[in-house]
Amino acid sequence: MTTINAYAATEAGGELQPFSYDVPDELGHDEVEIDVHSCGICHSDLSMLMNHWEMTEYPFVPGHEIAGVVGRVGAGVSTVKPGDRVGLGWFSRSCMGCDQCMGGDHNLCGTREQTIVGRHGGFADRVRCAESWAVPIPDGVDLESAGPLFCGGITVFNPLVQLGVTPLSRVGVVGIGGLGHLALQFANKWGCEVTAFTSTDAKAEEAKKLGAHNVVSSKNPFKIQALAGTLDVIIVTVNVNLDWDSYVAALAPKGVLHVVGAVPDPIPAHAFALLSEQKSIGGTPLGSPLNTSRMLEFCARHDIKPVIETFPMEDVNAAMKHLEEGKARYRIVLNRN
Amino acid sequence: MTTINAYAATEAGGELQPFSYDVPDELGHDEVEIDVHSCGICHSDLSMLMNHWEMTEYPFVPGHEIAGVVGRVGAGVSTVKPGDRVGLGWFSRSCMGCDQCMGGDHNLCGTREQTIVGRHGGFADRVRCAESWAVPIPDGVDLESAGPLFCGGITVFNPLVQLGVTPLSRVGVVGIGGLGHLALQFANKWGCEVTAFTSTDAKAEEAKKLGAHNVVSSKNPFKIQALAGTLDVIIVTVNVNLDWDSYVAALAPKGVLHVVGAVPDPIPAHAFALLSEQKSIGGTPLGSPLNTSRMLEFCARHDIKPVIETFPMEDVNAAMKHLEEGKARYRIVLNRN
Repeated sequence: MTTINAYAATEAGGELQPFSYDVPDELGHDEVEIDVHSCGICHSDLSMLMNHWEMTEYPFVPGHEIAGVVGRVGAGVSTVKPGDRVGLGWFSRSCMGCDQCMGGDHNLCGTREQTIVGRHGGFADRVRCAESWAVPIPDGVDLESAGPLFCGGITVFNPLVQLGVTPLSRVGVVGIGGLGHLALQFANKWGCEVTAFTSTDAKAEEAKKLGAHNVVSSKNPFKIQALAGTLDVIIVTVNVNLDWDSYVAALAPKGVLHVVGAVPDPIPAHAFALLSEQKSIGGTPLGSPLNTSRMLEFCARHDIKPVIETFPMEDVNAAMKHLEEGKARYRIVLNRN
Repeated sequence: MTTINAYAATEAGGELQPFSYDVPDELGHDEVEIDVHSCGICHSDLSMLMNHWEMTEYPFVPGHEIAGVVGRVGAGVSTVKPGDRVGLGWFSRSCMGCDQCMGGDHNLCGTREQTIVGRHGGFADRVRCAESWAVPIPDGVDLESAGPLFCGGITVFNPLVQLGVTPLSRVGVVGIGGLGHLALQFANKWGCEVTAFTSTDAKAEEAKKLGAHNVVSSKNPFKIQALAGTLDVIIVTVNVNLDWDSYVAALAPKGVLHVVGAVPDPIPAHAFALLSEQKSIGGTPLGSPLNTSRMLEFCARHDIKPVIETFPMEDVNAAMKHLEEGKARYRIVLNRN
């Protein structure tokens, strides 16, 4: 057996403590073992730790923004080899045979495996996944910065692809945190007019540096209402309830309100408000391996990086506390060395 | 002055009675006067008569599914001439200069004029409108059948265009009435797999004749739930509250729930249910003049017609009562002669 050394909580909200588990020496046919270099911390790690979504199994090893180096591969693996730099995000396996997988939408596979649901994640020295989800990291993206792109990054990059956003689009980003601060950079480099919505006035200047052409206080309903009819896409990165009607009103004709966070209560979709100007409300989960790869190339080409704060992995509890207190600017990365 | 002879109600829910109003002899520069041959009755005529949407002005002349012949035209009109067969639907004018008009989406114009809102409609011997909204009726579409296409028809045809529906799409149609019975024909001739949802079991056989490959009782939640994950587009033609969660569940990954009726209460858009499989909820209002024209050509090519019941226009109150009682199969048309 091979022993993997990780950090796990044994109960909801519990401290993360050193935890080892054994896996077979022999990798599955299509399996890749990644030696973890760094692992970002996503708000979902916290939600899972707390069992907010009632699907956490304990002992629970968080971590799904993994960047590292391929250590070993299974007999059938052909796309990566030991020594390759790769990353792993929220999904770690898909069936490869369903309509979604065959159509290039592996992130919509009905039996997709989630890196920290029913299995152990990347707060560890090693993690295993299916070959197709170990996405190579290109030159120009460093390992420390790469992790957050694999969940926070692809979550806000994929909507630009899926919604057919063009450089002529006017894009709003609600929430300037781990996801939003990447969304601003993506949308700016995509060529769009970018409007940031933030409840933290202190983030306004930084939002502009990250790529926002306009910054609007989301605490001020009049400011949002003043934008009526102007935005083609609004990407909502927060997972709290908002004054949805104002955001729908801020959409231009044919505009899309696009959620990527687990907003707690249903968003009221008023038929008349939607149909009258051909608006819609939707969402996406992460992205496919191919679009993750495209995102990484886009990052390398445009020098897009998450703004990170680093902690040694052994200080994981301090890092989680920093996140929980809303202090992360903008993404925390745990480094193993 | 020119006198137009119409039928109007003087109060909410009142009887329609003969009513004349005067307009200037001289038409506006871009104006067209249509000699009404037939006029369909849409449920919106009833809603407006009742002032359900609180925007009715009395005396109120209903009628926005108009088919007729151009009588006279303004000095600047070039696209139609006296004697041409044309139709007029819910919109009768748009600004022609805004982004939406300039982009071909005249039906989304912010100052679009509605045929029976703040002006008099087609339960009359004549009606006037802007040139661009008097859409020529091609050979192969008779005047008696044409009217219902200009509201009921384009309302369900336009989603096929706007949503990029292809012959490979699996399309659901909720409600087999004035709109739905046309949606079934459109989607079938578009090459799609078509599923009809109806609360009236007696309509099942007819739904199949109209083009449905499958008919599902919308009264049976288990039947809807059994469709989970199978439909790419669901066009909701009814204006009542439904078990929305079941319909969203019935969508395939990337599926769209598309409303075209004024559903009274907000549809609960659960962020997780939408984003998890990249689903969305949206709607459209009618369609542009160009897409109306394309629809008419499509109807001529595929012999698509509304199933109508005709009444002489002077029996308008009996016709409205027939509609109100839910007896229309499937669209009522008032004939002037």
